[in-house]
Amino acid sequence: MTKHAVTYEHIKTCKQSGARLGIVHTPHGSFETPVFMPVGTQATVKTMAPEQIKDMNANIILSNTYHLWVRPGHDVIKEAGGLHKFMNWDGAILTDSGGFQVFSLADLRNITEEGVHFRNHLNGDKLFLSPEKAMEIQNALGSDIMMAFDECPPFPASHEYMKASVERTSRWAERCLAAHERPQDQALFGIIQGGEYEDLRRQSARDLASLDFPGYAVGGLSVGEPKDVMYRALDFTTPLMPEDKPRYLMGVGSPDALIEGAIRGIDMFDCVLPTRIARNGTLMTSSGRLVVRNAKYARDFRPLDEKCDCYACKNYSRAYIHHLIRAQETFGLHLCSTHNLHFLVKLMEGVRQAIREDRLLDFKDEFFEEYGYNLPNAKNF
Amino acid sequence: MTKHAVTYEHIKTCKQSGARLGIVHTPHGSFETPVFMPVGTQATVKTMAPEQIKDMNANIILSNTYHLWVRPGHDVIKEAGGLHKFMNWDGAILTDSGGFQVFSLADLRNITEEGVHFRNHLNGDKLFLSPEKAMEIQNALGSDIMMAFDECPPFPASHEYMKASVERTSRWAERCLAAHERPQDQALFGIIQGGEYEDLRRQSARDLASLDFPGYAVGGLSVGEPKDVMYRALDFTTPLMPEDKPRYLMGVGSPDALIEGAIRGIDMFDCVLPTRIARNGTLMTSSGRLVVRNAKYARDFRPLDEKCDCYACKNYSRAYIHHLIRAQETFGLHLCSTHNLHFLVKLMEGVRQAIREDRLLDFKDEFFEEYGYNLPNAKNF
Repeated sequence: MTKHAVTYEHIKTCKQSGARLGIVHTPHGSFETPVFMPVGTQATVKTMAPEQIKDMNANIILSNTYHLWVRPGHDVIKEAGGLHKFMNWDGAILTDSGGFQVFSLADLRNITEEGVHFRNHLNGDKLFLSPEKAMEIQNALGSDIMMAFDECPPFPASHEYMKASVERTSRWAERCLAAHERPQDQALFGIIQGGEYEDLRRQSARDLASLDFPGYAVGGLSVGEPKDVMYRALDFTTPLMPEDKPRYLMGVGSPDALIEGAIRGIDMFDCVLPTRIARNGTLMTSSGRLVVRNAKYARDFRPLDEKCDCYACKNYSRAYIHHLIRAQETFGLHLCSTHNLHFLVKLMEGVRQAIREDRLLDFKDEFFEEYGYNLPNAKNF
Repeated sequence: MTKHAVTYEHIKTCKQSGARLGIVHTPHGSFETPVFMPVGTQATVKTMAPEQIKDMNANIILSNTYHLWVRPGHDVIKEAGGLHKFMNWDGAILTDSGGFQVFSLADLRNITEEGVHFRNHLNGDKLFLSPEKAMEIQNALGSDIMMAFDECPPFPASHEYMKASVERTSRWAERCLAAHERPQDQALFGIIQGGEYEDLRRQSARDLASLDFPGYAVGGLSVGEPKDVMYRALDFTTPLMPEDKPRYLMGVGSPDALIEGAIRGIDMFDCVLPTRIARNGTLMTSSGRLVVRNAKYARDFRPLDEKCDCYACKNYSRAYIHHLIRAQETFGLHLCSTHNLHFLVKLMEGVRQAIREDRLLDFKDEFFEEYGYNLPNAKNF
């Protein structure tokens, strides 16, 4: 049996919900799960210094292979000594495969068995991404967790299309394993696809489990489908995933979905949501969504969230942050990003504590009630 | 004699250059002079947290009355408990009078004896700024040092125009003193105008000195005139200023002008230069100007300035900062701003040490040589 670069240590399972509490060990430190990973697309978590991410006890971040490949180039980062050194982050890093961005951002893509031809979103240059290329780039970046190159079809896709796609993704996964040059330093995770089709998720999970990846992701969710479709897909997918490996739900970061995902046995999550909505002056707070940009906050001298102890809430008022956002000052984006990231990191601390106490379903009810998810017109993300 | 809210303690005069070493005491702490004051136009030093400014030993910042008046409004800041509390800065704050911005930013201005009618630069609303209004706003902001409302004519202005302007500025200064409601908490500085005309500077200095302001500024320089014109004006203006009060040269922040100003007896300086050029990826370094945005730095893994110990230089490479600037990541602007502000703060520490050692002229020669100011095609700011 292969000694993997990343391992999963199971601590306990919540008796009430079935959620898992665990620890993931990586070459750059360990982190407790379920965990939310802040996204640093372009080798920086937007508006944040690495120390500030560390200070909120986030020990793993995600970065995007596609973006770093087209700028500054993986060769530059390799020459710098790898992504950790380039961006001054000594915690763990997960990189995606670039597949999702190729399918969502790039123009004129053409999918073949060999890989995907497309034009990049910066200057329109023709590029080709394949399982081998995705491994070459991620090996150069030196991330602790690499992701296999997959196809991520948008919702809805026909069963016929999805079946062909799943089978190709399985063939690509084998090619990724073969091309991965540093399995002793970097763990390669497989991605289970299959959309909302139970038989295809089963087929994908079986194909990938046979390849003994050190971890598995659920891909192809949060791609436009309703949340109940996502939860149903998780209901039948996570039981198909190995119990001794981390389970990662890609691209999900709304508070409700983090809790629902944990209940369904997911260990890792990532999403640009907290930093993206911060740029519009939108916050997640203990009493729900708050758009500090709105005129009604111009003279509101309370903190963003009266129950929060983040740097922004301890030191600044809604009125000040409202002013900064209106005045287009980057410090306002920084304060909103700080709060939102802190909110999700603390939410996951709460989730882990609730698992420890076998009461994650109660925790969910309490959180949903306070956040306002139970209100008929609740504005979710 | 009035007990002023701000006082100047003279430590020594440089035997070689005549520059002054001193300490300015304010209601929010003291700072050594000569000093460079970072500018926080909109109640934030662009891209920086207040703690980061404090950490570089900058104990006074400047903020702009005009900008805060039009957004968020001085009434909002007053309601917040003043500017210090609003922006979470417990060091000293100097606010300008708004005059310079009205003359440089606003549209359709019309100057009368009463004040200036203009349209603001945000939405074109008609506004009126007068000595009384400038005092009302600055009293609401609660800055430690307020500036008198003056006219700041651009270079060149005729002797005739400048004479009328200086005389009006003196009348406005008296009205400012009369309107100032909190002299025990906030010190009001007078501004000596007169452009490049020695007789008018003399007239302005004499008018204002008779009013016993707790400090005096030299205004109307760095408004388009060549540097030698500025230095000549300082040569004959600073000797006209009281020795027991701080002397402030407004809007000047290039490294050479800071040293030349100190040599001519100036104690305080401010300028947006370090944060403004940072936004284009331009740095001041010990070996001169460096545009990290340029392609040649894409694979340069040295720090911005190999002799610098700022946060940016200790932790990041030119290649990384080049990438951040190209990718329009605000963290890149933050790192460049951090370096430039640190550079000027450290430069002034060097100036003060040289005064202590009676060798500021030698310090200047050494600095100019290393920075490249002596090169025939030196790119200055």
